[in-house]
Amino acid sequence: MNHPERDGVIRQGSVAWQAATGSAGVLLDAAEIGSMAETLLLGFLDEQDLLAVELPELALFTGLLRDLIAAGGKRIRPQLCVLGWHAITCEPPTSAVWRVAASLELFHAFALIHDDVMDHSVLRRGRLTAHRVFAARYRNHRDADSLGEHAAILLGDIALGWSYELLHDRDSAPDLSRAVGAALNALRTETLIGQYLDLSATGCSAADLETAWRIIRLKTTKYTIERPLQLGALLAGAGRAQLETLSEYAIPLGDAFQLRDDLLGVFGDSGDTGKGTLDDLREGKHTVLMATAYQRATPAQTRLLRRYLGNPGLSERDADRIRRVVTDTGAREAVEQMIDSRVSQALAALDVGTLEPDAEGALRRLVHTAANRST
Amino acid sequence: MNHPERDGVIRQGSVAWQAATGSAGVLLDAAEIGSMAETLLLGFLDEQDLLAVELPELALFTGLLRDLIAAGGKRIRPQLCVLGWHAITCEPPTSAVWRVAASLELFHAFALIHDDVMDHSVLRRGRLTAHRVFAARYRNHRDADSLGEHAAILLGDIALGWSYELLHDRDSAPDLSRAVGAALNALRTETLIGQYLDLSATGCSAADLETAWRIIRLKTTKYTIERPLQLGALLAGAGRAQLETLSEYAIPLGDAFQLRDDLLGVFGDSGDTGKGTLDDLREGKHTVLMATAYQRATPAQTRLLRRYLGNPGLSERDADRIRRVVTDTGAREAVEQMIDSRVSQALAALDVGTLEPDAEGALRRLVHTAANRST
Repeated sequence: MNHPERDGVIRQGSVAWQAATGSAGVLLDAAEIGSMAETLLLGFLDEQDLLAVELPELALFTGLLRDLIAAGGKRIRPQLCVLGWHAITCEPPTSAVWRVAASLELFHAFALIHDDVMDHSVLRRGRLTAHRVFAARYRNHRDADSLGEHAAILLGDIALGWSYELLHDRDSAPDLSRAVGAALNALRTETLIGQYLDLSATGCSAADLETAWRIIRLKTTKYTIERPLQLGALLAGAGRAQLETLSEYAIPLGDAFQLRDDLLGVFGDSGDTGKGTLDDLREGKHTVLMATAYQRATPAQTRLLRRYLGNPGLSERDADRIRRVVTDTGAREAVEQMIDSRVSQALAALDVGTLEPDAEGALRRLVHTAANRST
Repeated sequence: MNHPERDGVIRQGSVAWQAATGSAGVLLDAAEIGSMAETLLLGFLDEQDLLAVELPELALFTGLLRDLIAAGGKRIRPQLCVLGWHAITCEPPTSAVWRVAASLELFHAFALIHDDVMDHSVLRRGRLTAHRVFAARYRNHRDADSLGEHAAILLGDIALGWSYELLHDRDSAPDLSRAVGAALNALRTETLIGQYLDLSATGCSAADLETAWRIIRLKTTKYTIERPLQLGALLAGAGRAQLETLSEYAIPLGDAFQLRDDLLGVFGDSGDTGKGTLDDLREGKHTVLMATAYQRATPAQTRLLRRYLGNPGLSERDADRIRRVVTDTGAREAVEQMIDSRVSQALAALDVGTLEPDAEGALRRLVHTAANRST
């Protein structure tokens, strides 16, 4: 572990963080936050490559992580973490805020990589998924598909581990507080249990709305919205009332965000979402949208859903049959209305005025972006 | 995240650590170290259950981790971590040493769970592997095997994340030093890259000794022996010469440990090893033993190895044909000799006398246990 470059690299990383902190006297916009988190992440990956001089294979893994990050993504978790900080204080975000923000994005990369293996997804952010890239690399191997999946599992494992490494500033900064550590631990556990519920419910053709809602809460609402906001706010020393306001805002917003995702998964344009349009339908994802369609379906419509939903060989024409049922049962319109009412609730939660005004404005704008997005 | 029980649980955990530390005025034996690491781990899992009152499904995951830990295992990494500490100082191990030791065991649980998924193993420590337990739970599901594997991937993810959580004492103890953090990060990356090399080499029927040795170095020697010893020593403030002695001891020992494992994988008794005897042969594991057999094989023996090694449907009788080739080529005896010479090297490394005498004696005894074990 004697690497002369190492100290230099770590210093370089610190300069990036100081630059980030120094420029943040005013509220940063979403693109600036995303680009800052991305810079930190890429710097961390460069550092890992330099540390691992005896592991030339690691470059393949860091390269795939760089590609996944460079391919886009909404960076919504880093954005909300920094917004959570700004909601509580006018001070510029500390390096700990940026570390947590970047760590959330790396954890998300892990979650996407493992989810894509489990869902057998082919596309992510408009590019081949990691397990398909590995499978192509081993196309002459007797079991290239399995090998690709297993290598992608290892890639996810590395990203998960590094999402912790990234949290700890090696330049002797104080450690994260107990409350921040507990919230991060909760975020990870909730997300993984949410994924477990999701996969064990996928393929069940029941109209089980309760499970669909629990999956939304764990896999999206808490993971994507509530916990990142809470983390930024905790780092800024938020009080109980402020944390409550943030949760009352975050929960309807997170639900709306996922309901929109479910609609996009059925009716969206794959050119916009970067995912295959038929993936959710072929997998038979257990969503509120589909549970609602089942609940409202006539016997003939139920038969049609049972026949086509979750069929791995689903054609574009079969997908259209499902889409017609979802529309004709009124499920599509019902979910649009659910989104509308949640948008109102999220906005109303901010009316108590316990948060910093600039950040509150940004949180209001975010509601419309998240609920009405097409990607 | 308001749990009145939580502070109580954390205090209880601290008491366990203090007890461990207090009783460690003299060198602990392997069983005591293993039992202490196990107690810490189980206490940590209890704490996670209590924290996750809104996640009843988590009990299934913590239960499987408890079962895996209770089913045995050699606890060699915790043991070496504590021995690494004792090699440098007569002071009793600190709570940080116990945390790192328990964290290594939980990381190992993660590695076993994911490895077993990738290797399609059915047994681990004499019980069904995690993915088989999950598959049995979902036996009425249309794709129970896949679902079992995916749930086990999530279980491994949770264990990996918690191996980091466990490192950080929530009772405001000072954080781990930069050197310890770097060694832990290196251990994880090396292990995962070693697994990647292992799986991408499995099924290649070449007599590629170099790759087989690199896999041993990363997946076993560094992971199981060198890094855990180094971690304990770093925590005790070891100097450069002491760290060098430990590495010169650890590397031949680790190589010998894995060479024994390869022999047990082919010739061992599954009742002793807790793994299926045919697993390694059915997978076509790329080992030094097999690469040596290939290098020495006659054309007829090569054809036989190509035909049977890596055949998932391998019978006990086919396995005997492979065993005969491995014996007849002299590969078995050659590997026994490699083990013997490495045992001598490991023992000779200790002759410089830079380490504490009691620990040095324990390290000498360990060489014989590790190289001559039957499990």
